Amino acid sequence: MTETSALITDFYELTMMHGYYLENHDSKAVFDMFYRNNPFQGGYTIFTGIEELVDKLEGLRFSESDISYLRSLSIFDEGFLEYLKTYRFHGDVYAFDEGTPAFPGEPLIRIESDLMDAQLVETLLLNTVNFETLIATKASRMTLATKGHGSIMEFGLRRAQGENGAHAASRASFIGGTKSTSNTYAGKKYGIPVAGTMAHSWIMSYSSEEEAFRKFVEIYPDNGILLIDTYDTLGSGIEAAIKIGLEQKAKGKRIGVRIDSGDLSYLTKEIRARLDAAGLEDATICVSNDLTEEIIRSLVSDGAPIDSWGIGTHLVTGGSQSSLNGVYKLSAKEENGTMIPCLKVSNSYEKTTNPGIKQVYRFFDNAGGALADLITLNDEEMMQGKDITFFHPFSTADFFVMKKDRYATMVPMLTKKMENGRRITPSPSLSEIQKTSAEKLAAFDKSYKRLINPHIYKVSLSENLRNLKTDLLVRTRTKEREARNS
Amino acid sequence: MTETSALITDFYELTMMHGYYLENHDSKAVFDMFYRNNPFQGGYTIFTGIEELVDKLEGLRFSESDISYLRSLSIFDEGFLEYLKTYRFHGDVYAFDEGTPAFPGEPLIRIESDLMDAQLVETLLLNTVNFETLIATKASRMTLATKGHGSIMEFGLRRAQGENGAHAASRASFIGGTKSTSNTYAGKKYGIPVAGTMAHSWIMSYSSEEEAFRKFVEIYPDNGILLIDTYDTLGSGIEAAIKIGLEQKAKGKRIGVRIDSGDLSYLTKEIRARLDAAGLEDATICVSNDLTEEIIRSLVSDGAPIDSWGIGTHLVTGGSQSSLNGVYKLSAKEENGTMIPCLKVSNSYEKTTNPGIKQVYRFFDNAGGALADLITLNDEEMMQGKDITFFHPFSTADFFVMKKDRYATMVPMLTKKMENGRRITPSPSLSEIQKTSAEKLAAFDKSYKRLINPHIYKVSLSENLRNLKTDLLVRTRTKEREARNS
Repeated sequence: MTETSALITDFYELTMMHGYYLENHDSKAVFDMFYRNNPFQGGYTIFTGIEELVDKLEGLRFSESDISYLRSLSIFDEGFLEYLKTYRFHGDVYAFDEGTPAFPGEPLIRIESDLMDAQLVETLLLNTVNFETLIATKASRMTLATKGHGSIMEFGLRRAQGENGAHAASRASFIGGTKSTSNTYAGKKYGIPVAGTMAHSWIMSYSSEEEAFRKFVEIYPDNGILLIDTYDTLGSGIEAAIKIGLEQKAKGKRIGVRIDSGDLSYLTKEIRARLDAAGLEDATICVSNDLTEEIIRSLVSDGAPIDSWGIGTHLVTGGSQSSLNGVYKLSAKEENGTMIPCLKVSNSYEKTTNPGIKQVYRFFDNAGGALADLITLNDEEMMQGKDITFFHPFSTADFFVMKKDRYATMVPMLTKKMENGRRITPSPSLSEIQKTSAEKLAAFDKSYKRLINPHIYKVSLSENLRNLKTDLLVRTRTKEREARNS
Repeated sequence: MTETSALITDFYELTMMHGYYLENHDSKAVFDMFYRNNPFQGGYTIFTGIEELVDKLEGLRFSESDISYLRSLSIFDEGFLEYLKTYRFHGDVYAFDEGTPAFPGEPLIRIESDLMDAQLVETLLLNTVNFETLIATKASRMTLATKGHGSIMEFGLRRAQGENGAHAASRASFIGGTKSTSNTYAGKKYGIPVAGTMAHSWIMSYSSEEEAFRKFVEIYPDNGILLIDTYDTLGSGIEAAIKIGLEQKAKGKRIGVRIDSGDLSYLTKEIRARLDAAGLEDATICVSNDLTEEIIRSLVSDGAPIDSWGIGTHLVTGGSQSSLNGVYKLSAKEENGTMIPCLKVSNSYEKTTNPGIKQVYRFFDNAGGALADLITLNDEEMMQGKDITFFHPFSTADFFVMKKDRYATMVPMLTKKMENGRRITPSPSLSEIQKTSAEKLAAFDKSYKRLINPHIYKVSLSENLRNLKTDLLVRTRTKEREARNS
């Protein structure tokens, strides 16, 4: 088990934990993680990071030096610092499976523990899951944008946000559908296939492109990808590549070329024609240079003959949207031995939380197509084969009825990942996660997966949950009014 | 010394390094790191990350398990793997000082080593410096936007890109001007003051805001900041805060309030008035909620009475611009014992590199104001007290003359940071870096620091460098034409 420093948390989590400790205010509490808006103007996310989070929570420790540091701040009680020495995360964790398509407002992780424990882990949880979900979603969108034309190599390390911002991005990208990474460390750590081509400096270090290419294929005879845009893509670059390609062909080998600048639609078509005319029909074309899902889609619909995509910046940072707005909110707390549902109200109606301990069911039709999701109270009995009313999450008088013959199955999405702070089942392999993630996404109609302006997938409240939410909201507002009038 | 895995590199750096090894093609080489455009539509960057980079390069190692991993890929020569076992970075590193204002096209780091060594470190270098420079620049812009009205607390951990994406962001933010961080781990690691307020869940865990606030100030009597927007900011929230504030005042203590939602301009003015009317003139107001430099500027020009800003997402990820486009290019290589300048040409004129081993001089007037920067060849003799011609970096027939009575000093910006792979001078403390960074930025006219549409600070080429660049470019284009016509 790898240790994770429990100092990877916002300082206020520690001051509040300390407060709960001093007040003996350590009743049971349940928190939900959810997010409010899909990133990239898209219709879904690929929920990612839970398997890493489970590992981190299992290994969460305050080291001796962590405790010395906290002591040096002169605000923490010695008894509390003593308690931290043997602290272990001891909550139960329920979550969506790694790589599952998810939607706004759904509780994706539910933590059941005491207040101190559940409070401490908030920041680490959000740091892990917000970022990996963002990047897996980006990778999924880019993969969809290719429409099966060529695979994506993740080339992001140099533009990523910090070292393990890069490693986590490589992992999440792979879950979202990329085929390889340039990040050698991530290759070792996660077993992702590593890939790469050559740098302009390799070429510049030789006296000609022909010499640089020949040296390269001597060392790497199989599928060597030659970078042809150092001096003149359609001149010396492609000419040298064809020369080397023909030499390799005579040896039964093939080459590829990579273009890292210029108009990729025009250049790939020209280069495909030149390669084909030379008899190098099996030579592949790889492109790179600040690619986004919009550029991929435009190149694909242009018919640009591209066999692989090298993508860095926008994939591993999210590009124009660099964070997911996932939050972690108290949904129930113990009072006199009973769990009481909690509501955080807000002046913006869509920010008012869903109270209580909850479950999410995904409804599927006979053909396995996803129909809609329903957030319920965890202790509701869900009976297959009945009509079920789906209430709008904000506009709580709006509803529709899911007829019993419309759906074939309802699947509970939150399953137990940790019990009393320990992992329950081993993590699936990354390839397995990638595969099941793609299968799960395939169950959704393509209208939900449009890159922009997608059809909105319905996430509704069960009647019980809707009644509880309405009731608590009315009670809070009434109390406020009485307080103002008094 | 902390070890850094040398696998934190793009895979192609290793395949090229391997290629150079097998070819005995290991001549001396010089690489420059520079970036092409200022981020955020701004006028400058705060160059950051070099001190961390020096530490990483000093500790760069291939561990036994790193080498086993590379062996498992079945493409590397055993002799090469053996070589990696004792590999140490052994280059000389010249760079701008940490926290120095920098501009597009300037060589900010110059690495002099052999090809293998200089090639390997490219990705790690860019990963470190691109990101930290981006975030220090963002923090600097946000600090300028406050116009001295209130200090910035960095609250980014939960929205940052991976754990050390967060830690590096906390460090870089501090260099750029923030006063504290919520990230406890970064507080310990870098000695940044830690800060925080309270969570909505603290309040929800008690039966009323009044009880929650009272418990809080009992434990943290000094300057406790009370979060007042859980239920009703201008109702129960501010009323409970005033009640507790008056109790604290009677004990000689003061409070603060924090608002995390709603219209911050309207709310802060209302709340200031309510606090003042209650006799709590010394109570402070802290705001948060997806702040950007544009929102800060708007609140400040609105006269919103804000004492501190809690900023997360946009600060630690860069917000809408999530990466700096820094690159690393070969500028000279050894041939037959002589260093030959290298040029990477491009069809976009602004992407053609500046050849040769270079230095940068910053020119200041009598009052210490920065006038312009000049990129020169490193071996040019720069004589104070002479008129100097500044050539445009792309439009190489454009120039202006810096008259000898216009400037008072010229300061070389690239200084030696490592010799033969070892750090030369200890890193300054982070507070020292923050202080000198602010002083250096103050030397620039405010027109260069406008948030958008700033005046462009001039970065020019010396006559010698301009002549070399022109000469190499003409030679390359002539060779291309001859090749096409042959």
